[in-house]
Amino acid sequence: MATSVIILAAGKGTRMKSALPKVLQPLANTPLLGHVLNTARQLQAERIITIYGHGGELVKQTFSKQNIDWVEQAEQLGTGHAVQMTLPILPQEGLSLILYGDVPLVSKNTLQRLLDASTASGIGMITLNVENPTGYGRIIRKDGKIQAIIEHKDASEQQRQITEINTGIYCVSNQKLHEWLPKLSNNNVQGEYYLTDIVAMAVADGLEIASIAPEFNFEVEGINDRLQLAALECQWQNYQAETLMRQGVHIIDPHRFDLRGTLNCGQDVQIDINVIIEGECELGDNVKIGAGCILKNTKIAANTVVQPYSVFDSAIVGENNQIGPFARLRPNAVLANDVHIGNFVEVKNSSVGYASKANHFTYLGDAQVGAESNIGAGTITCNYDGANKHKTVIGNQAFIGSNSSLVAPVQIGDGATVGAGSVITRDVAAHSLAVERAEVRHKANYQRPQKQKS
Amino acid sequence: MATSVIILAAGKGTRMKSALPKVLQPLANTPLLGHVLNTARQLQAERIITIYGHGGELVKQTFSKQNIDWVEQAEQLGTGHAVQMTLPILPQEGLSLILYGDVPLVSKNTLQRLLDASTASGIGMITLNVENPTGYGRIIRKDGKIQAIIEHKDASEQQRQITEINTGIYCVSNQKLHEWLPKLSNNNVQGEYYLTDIVAMAVADGLEIASIAPEFNFEVEGINDRLQLAALECQWQNYQAETLMRQGVHIIDPHRFDLRGTLNCGQDVQIDINVIIEGECELGDNVKIGAGCILKNTKIAANTVVQPYSVFDSAIVGENNQIGPFARLRPNAVLANDVHIGNFVEVKNSSVGYASKANHFTYLGDAQVGAESNIGAGTITCNYDGANKHKTVIGNQAFIGSNSSLVAPVQIGDGATVGAGSVITRDVAAHSLAVERAEVRHKANYQRPQKQKS
Amino acid sequence: MATSVIILAAGKGTRMKSALPKVLQPLANTPLLGHVLNTARQLQAERIITIYGHGGELVKQTFSKQNIDWVEQAEQLGTGHAVQMTLPILPQEGLSLILYGDVPLVSKNTLQRLLDASTASGIGMITLNVENPTGYGRIIRKDGKIQAIIEHKDASEQQRQITEINTGIYCVSNQKLHEWLPKLSNNNVQGEYYLTDIVAMAVADGLEIASIAPEFNFEVEGINDRLQLAALECQWQNYQAETLMRQGVHIIDPHRFDLRGTLNCGQDVQIDINVIIEGECELGDNVKIGAGCILKNTKIAANTVVQPYSVFDSAIVGENNQIGPFARLRPNAVLANDVHIGNFVEVKNSSVGYASKANHFTYLGDAQVGAESNIGAGTITCNYDGANKHKTVIGNQAFIGSNSSLVAPVQIGDGATVGAGSVITRDVAAHSLAVERAEVRHKANYQRPQKQKS
Repeated sequence: MATSVIILAAGKGTRMKSALPKVLQPLANTPLLGHVLNTARQLQAERIITIYGHGGELVKQTFSKQNIDWVEQAEQLGTGHAVQMTLPILPQEGLSLILYGDVPLVSKNTLQRLLDASTASGIGMITLNVENPTGYGRIIRKDGKIQAIIEHKDASEQQRQITEINTGIYCVSNQKLHEWLPKLSNNNVQGEYYLTDIVAMAVADGLEIASIAPEFNFEVEGINDRLQLAALECQWQNYQAETLMRQGVHIIDPHRFDLRGTLNCGQDVQIDINVIIEGECELGDNVKIGAGCILKNTKIAANTVVQPYSVFDSAIVGENNQIGPFARLRPNAVLANDVHIGNFVEVKNSSVGYASKANHFTYLGDAQVGAESNIGAGTITCNYDGANKHKTVIGNQAFIGSNSSLVAPVQIGDGATVGAGSVITRDVAAHSLAVERAEVRHKANYQRPQKQKS
Repeated sequence: MATSVIILAAGKGTRMKSALPKVLQPLANTPLLGHVLNTARQLQAERIITIYGHGGELVKQTFSKQNIDWVEQAEQLGTGHAVQMTLPILPQEGLSLILYGDVPLVSKNTLQRLLDASTASGIGMITLNVENPTGYGRIIRKDGKIQAIIEHKDASEQQRQITEINTGIYCVSNQKLHEWLPKLSNNNVQGEYYLTDIVAMAVADGLEIASIAPEFNFEVEGINDRLQLAALECQWQNYQAETLMRQGVHIIDPHRFDLRGTLNCGQDVQIDINVIIEGECELGDNVKIGAGCILKNTKIAANTVVQPYSVFDSAIVGENNQIGPFARLRPNAVLANDVHIGNFVEVKNSSVGYASKANHFTYLGDAQVGAESNIGAGTITCNYDGANKHKTVIGNQAFIGSNSSLVAPVQIGDGATVGAGSVITRDVAAHSLAVERAEVRHKANYQRPQKQKS
Repeated sequence: MATSVIILAAGKGTRMKSALPKVLQPLANTPLLGHVLNTARQLQAERIITIYGHGGELVKQTFSKQNIDWVEQAEQLGTGHAVQMTLPILPQEGLSLILYGDVPLVSKNTLQRLLDASTASGIGMITLNVENPTGYGRIIRKDGKIQAIIEHKDASEQQRQITEINTGIYCVSNQKLHEWLPKLSNNNVQGEYYLTDIVAMAVADGLEIASIAPEFNFEVEGINDRLQLAALECQWQNYQAETLMRQGVHIIDPHRFDLRGTLNCGQDVQIDINVIIEGECELGDNVKIGAGCILKNTKIAANTVVQPYSVFDSAIVGENNQIGPFARLRPNAVLANDVHIGNFVEVKNSSVGYASKANHFTYLGDAQVGAESNIGAGTITCNYDGANKHKTVIGNQAFIGSNSSLVAPVQIGDGATVGAGSVITRDVAAHSLAVERAEVRHKANYQRPQKQKS
């Protein structure tokens, strides 16, 4: 049956004390609403309808490349009112999942189970058993069947003993939504239209309301302030670490591991403390990532060892490399196999060939380095002339002496040698030596500057 | 009413296994006693009397710039004996708070409440309800009024069920202290004078002893060993992180955040994992601090992004800067707006003007850089001649080629260009080019050194 | 009495999802089996017999330098079968401890107590009282004496209330092992030979089975998957941190401290967050290690301060040094007293004399620096000619100007000065100045490159 997803994302989130709408607050570097949208897409929802309100333009703009129907809720008149806004564009057929932009981590599997459970009667919901249900709406059952939801404040002492609570996540047939939502009333103390009231309507219609529990409690946790955000981030990180460990990744301290995106690992990957993974990353068999490394949109092939405090962004790293510590790979750094990149080395928009080495204090920008070349300590590719970026091409088996400056555009041929400290502005032929160096003047008994009196 | 603060700080702290007196052990980078003194000052105490003993000279020296009356307790004869030492200089009027140099985190608010509560009868104390009171002195009440404090070892089985304990923190009228303290007896197994005995004296005088609870339990926790120190540090860090989060700061993992001083934040500041803030720091709206950064006495204006592993000390950073990763700002680094400071760049006692960039491997020491200048990779200001430090002045729109050495004192004019790899020892005029470079010698078919047989 | 140690290390560890045999998985950087072998050696075991199975060649190879008797268990037919394999080489006299390669942290003290307790009757075991014994074999006692071990699945409801469980660690006289093991039967559902059955045999023989509890529960925890590995690593790290804190080390956050080897500390050592200690390290009195530092096989003398994010491997550091942040000491870096090594400085196989300084962007490789010398920012020892490494010798009170390249082999004499940016290929005499520098050409009204249209 065709599935629609309705996402309530109109809340301001005053308690976040932020200029950003609440649903744009990041969890694991993705906006809260982004998590829900990702899940909706995984469900292959036919239609995603998002209700925006405060700051809505920024919300729409953030997801402008996605296929979303945006519906405005100009006034905040309750959850039922919010869903009413969708009626003009809500299909007549199929089921709708009703989700929340500030309940980010509900999973595809849980929602699929909810869909499956709701198909028969046309209405289902996620409920949760909790230790301390204070403040939550309680699920009233009779002979196991849901009869009503009673808000905490309206509950009797006996009803307050009930530990099964309403999560607010529903699955309802669109036909019923079209029928029920117009009938919601705001005849209550707050003067709001409550989505919850559809439960009573369903019971009145003689429908049996399906219910499922989420696999993990964190799936139905909502975010209202920074403390809840941090607590959910922590749970999510622990869950992700556990998932990777079950797949065989050796995470040395799962409480000091942050995954803000997706990570695919081969066998026997080892990740030391305080590593951050962002975007889409891939690590081959036996890759070791040292403490404090930060990898973003990076792919590292098998048997490569990355030493601590290396920071990679959009790099492709071959097999059996030795990198770091304190290495920086910037976008479009492409390293072949058996490459060594040492401490305080920066590589940007450059390729480094098989078994080449740049072990200390080197800047490779817009460069192409062949195989088995050695880039001496302190070498800098002068890729920028103040206006344009130029390319440095270094061949195979080249040897660049320490502290050299290669002023691009320039080519260093195969087997060429550049003397230490040279500034090279013109091409160096293959197998030749180029040295830029003045005479050394020596002065005996040199009198150094003396400490000035202050 | 005039308030005095009496601080017992004479303990040796043998269990710390330290050469340092216990009250000088640091918590969040401030000596334990320093926390208590800070709080005393916040209360605008008329007089702060600190009782020192072991290692007292070092204690006095540490706080020598503060207005404190120091009283020696030469022999360790108990808490009552310690407070007795203050009598010769204790005012006759007003109230005294009796605090402890190793109970560092009692708050101004809690003490103010204690003062307020104690004014009427002239005696009050902080008590605490704990789950496991074993070892602590119990508060014996009758009709809700404090009757006595019974030490654990002297308590009956029934009294041991009492979970309200004595924290040792009192507020007493100075008049009563002058009256009671001389009457303390050391007629007990330890042969010590116990401050606790004033409770019995107050009851005997028919006074009603006020009592309050602290807002947080950690306020009354004392430190005797390194484990307790680490546990209290942890509680304090979590409390500080929570406080900032409630103000709207986005701390990604509050369990990996260390504040050792004070932090003022604008709106929507984001702080990634393992950041350390020391001294007095200020972060403007939308500032993002990357993982592992360490900021000390630093002020950063709005919209600046600091990438991971940047270490700043006593720097002033403008708006909309992009800094790091691996940037080092040392004292008196002053960056204007829109500045870029990249990886492995060190700035010391230097100013960098609007929109200037030093993106890689640069040392700016004692330099003044104008606006919109570009400092190439590997540039070094040679500010030290072995005896004295000299200044480098770089104008606006200057371009310093990579790997250059600017030998101070030297000036590079507006719009001037320095060729890559140049050593510049004399001023470069505005809009001129300066290049220090020898001829490049090329030698074809160069035979490289061969691997020596070992 | 002579002690043998039998270690069962034949398990594959399928749930680790690893190509590595389970007993080679690292905990605190040492293979699980390595921990057990270390403990066995501390007990001065006369003989260590290790039973290998899956991946056994790699296991044997890993510990090939140790004096171990290796016994193969070709088929996995149970713990009793495993120990049976040792009988051909098991001494007839003395006691054997039966340990497990995947129960890594049982301590010498606990095993010594087990040995002492087992001497009289010739059989003893470690048992544990746990809150939730579900799944474990229960210890059945009568009049306090062990009668039997009942597996969870075979236990009655009443027996399941028993919280004392079997850890599997035994101490048995070799004579009894020779007598009992051949009598084990695999007449059970799994068709395996259970070591546990020797308990019944001992009881049948009228022997009183000694039992002891471990000092810490983690000593008897076994590892089957990555989650258990991470959990035990965490417990071990906390235990190690606590042990150091009890000795007087100031660890600022024991939950962010990793010791993977041994650490000896003087008085008042302070270790900030996220420090990793590997191998054998030693820190003198008052040494301070900044946040995020990684020290491996390094010895640091008193009063030295290491600033954050410094990475040392096999270095020896003198007293009163100031090092970092972002300093890298590689193998055979040897620093005298009062040395300063600043940010982005790498020292490899080099010695630095008393009070010498290399404060910024310097590579010292295969160098020998005398006392009171100053190595300017950006100095590089060009120690590698593409084939061989050469030595740079710098005398006392030398001054190496910034951005210099010292092309080894080369000697810079006492009191010599090298001008900034020089490439020095020949020796510089004592007290002389050497400058390699071309004329600076100035060109007024220089027209810089313009931005190309793309």
